[in-house]
Amino acid sequence: MSDLPSRVEIFEEGPREGFQSSAVVPTAQKLRLIDALAQTGLSQIDCTSFVNTRLVPQMADAEQIAAGLVKRPGVRYISLWLSESGFRRALATSFDLAPSVLCCVSSTAAEKNSGCSGAELIRRQGRMIDLYREHALPLEYAHLSNAFGCSYEGHISTAQAMATLEELLAVCAAHGALPRVVYLSDTVGAGTPQSVSSLIGAARSRWPEQQFALHLHDTRGMGLANAWAGLTMGISRFDASIGGLGGCPFSGARGTTGNICTEDLALMCEEMGIATGLDLDRLADCARLAEEIIGQDLPGKFKRAGRLGVALGAAA
Amino acid sequence: MSDLPSRVEIFEEGPREGFQSSAVVPTAQKLRLIDALAQTGLSQIDCTSFVNTRLVPQMADAEQIAAGLVKRPGVRYISLWLSESGFRRALATSFDLAPSVLCCVSSTAAEKNSGCSGAELIRRQGRMIDLYREHALPLEYAHLSNAFGCSYEGHISTAQAMATLEELLAVCAAHGALPRVVYLSDTVGAGTPQSVSSLIGAARSRWPEQQFALHLHDTRGMGLANAWAGLTMGISRFDASIGGLGGCPFSGARGTTGNICTEDLALMCEEMGIATGLDLDRLADCARLAEEIIGQDLPGKFKRAGRLGVALGAAA
Repeated sequence: MSDLPSRVEIFEEGPREGFQSSAVVPTAQKLRLIDALAQTGLSQIDCTSFVNTRLVPQMADAEQIAAGLVKRPGVRYISLWLSESGFRRALATSFDLAPSVLCCVSSTAAEKNSGCSGAELIRRQGRMIDLYREHALPLEYAHLSNAFGCSYEGHISTAQAMATLEELLAVCAAHGALPRVVYLSDTVGAGTPQSVSSLIGAARSRWPEQQFALHLHDTRGMGLANAWAGLTMGISRFDASIGGLGGCPFSGARGTTGNICTEDLALMCEEMGIATGLDLDRLADCARLAEEIIGQDLPGKFKRAGRLGVALGAAA
Repeated sequence: MSDLPSRVEIFEEGPREGFQSSAVVPTAQKLRLIDALAQTGLSQIDCTSFVNTRLVPQMADAEQIAAGLVKRPGVRYISLWLSESGFRRALATSFDLAPSVLCCVSSTAAEKNSGCSGAELIRRQGRMIDLYREHALPLEYAHLSNAFGCSYEGHISTAQAMATLEELLAVCAAHGALPRVVYLSDTVGAGTPQSVSSLIGAARSRWPEQQFALHLHDTRGMGLANAWAGLTMGISRFDASIGGLGGCPFSGARGTTGNICTEDLALMCEEMGIATGLDLDRLADCARLAEEIIGQDLPGKFKRAGRLGVALGAAA
């Protein structure tokens, strides 16, 4: 446990990744949640995606979200895009820009989600980097999607993930920009504590100067176990989603479970003396607000269990 | 990760600890679940408690459960008791006997649950050991309840837990019987991966020959993270509950969340090459049966997510 960080940064994905996989939520409700989240100590909130609104109608109000933001100091309000046209839409708004590139370890998932091979998807990232440079924007994130597995191809080996990341970083280098942070993304919740530890270990050995972060999903219950594995390997940046928002965890829908839960991850860190800068009670209020907005229970535990010796009832 | 076991034993607590905290379930339904569980590869099922039926009406049918069992080979059907009268009731049935002693690190919880101080509770265990000897029964389990925290006293330190365990094992030794397995029991889900690792490390150093097991609850979402912490410390025995059965996870009730989920723990182990001997698909069927019986969704994830690359839908 010698690598355990003393402080972690938890970035909020709920309004983007969470609402992206739910029924369409009114813009005003999204803005209400974003503003509540902005008062919890979170330093970065992913607010929406600039993607094909025909395919993803949940995100059709991306411009309206930007227009409705009341920006609070100390909070970055970012958005996601996956193409040049998405980037240009984001550029025209008030969002804080987080220029990123992405690749996908699973070629099947790349085909299904991007309509091109994994190799072609990586080549396209060079054009994105050139575009960022034209706007004097440094490259911030590189996302290694499906780093641990995929719904179509099953588990993915560390060697396979490393080979894809090698290709992506080669394209970055060829275009003169290395990402500030590389996200190892467990897109469908395929990782185990062992595979997460293995990939972090391999990536840190190969690129000792590179900063790595984890984007985890709790599809199969191992989300916080994987986060703990990451913490013991020195990872200090995590994406998470308020209440575990995302997908339809209590319907029959499969493979659409949300990110690991923001407040549960924060609780685990805080109780081990790892500072998060987050207000747990306010986060729990936000999780309840998210439940109210989607009209469904969310899987996060802290909002129900409360603090030990404070809110808990009798021993079970 | 050098201490990772190659095989773990997962013991089923659902019919006892799960149904104990739900509404009263008809005996026939309990028997149906027990028999389904007995066909999953589980080697031990905790079927019921011999406790005060006025205080715990859910367990009033303990004798009828025993009478209704269809015992399948290779499965131990055990029950719990906390007093001499409970033991005598169990003795009169067909249950496999698992003689145990218990103590409680939290004196407040001991008072509330047993009506005596923690020290007095430990003294009473000597009488239980004598009773077991009268029936030529070796001592099997020692339970260290509230080993990591308590709803009343909050977090409990490793030193406090160690002091209580020291007292319990001294009483055991004075009465000429040491337990085959000591359970470090996170009764209310108060542990973190760090506190779980810390207590296991301290206990293994103090009693290197003693076998330890973990009884974990997922009240605050850290259940599988704590299990992973235990696995990395070489723990190879875990209690768990089908589907995460126990308490009312989706009602407003607090502090009554169930054990860690049997099939999710089994999935995590199997995917890391740690053998469980369990049939995951049959366990998922049992979890759905448990949901049908209690008329509520259970928190376990595997029963919804399925196997990677087999049942999962499109990437989220």
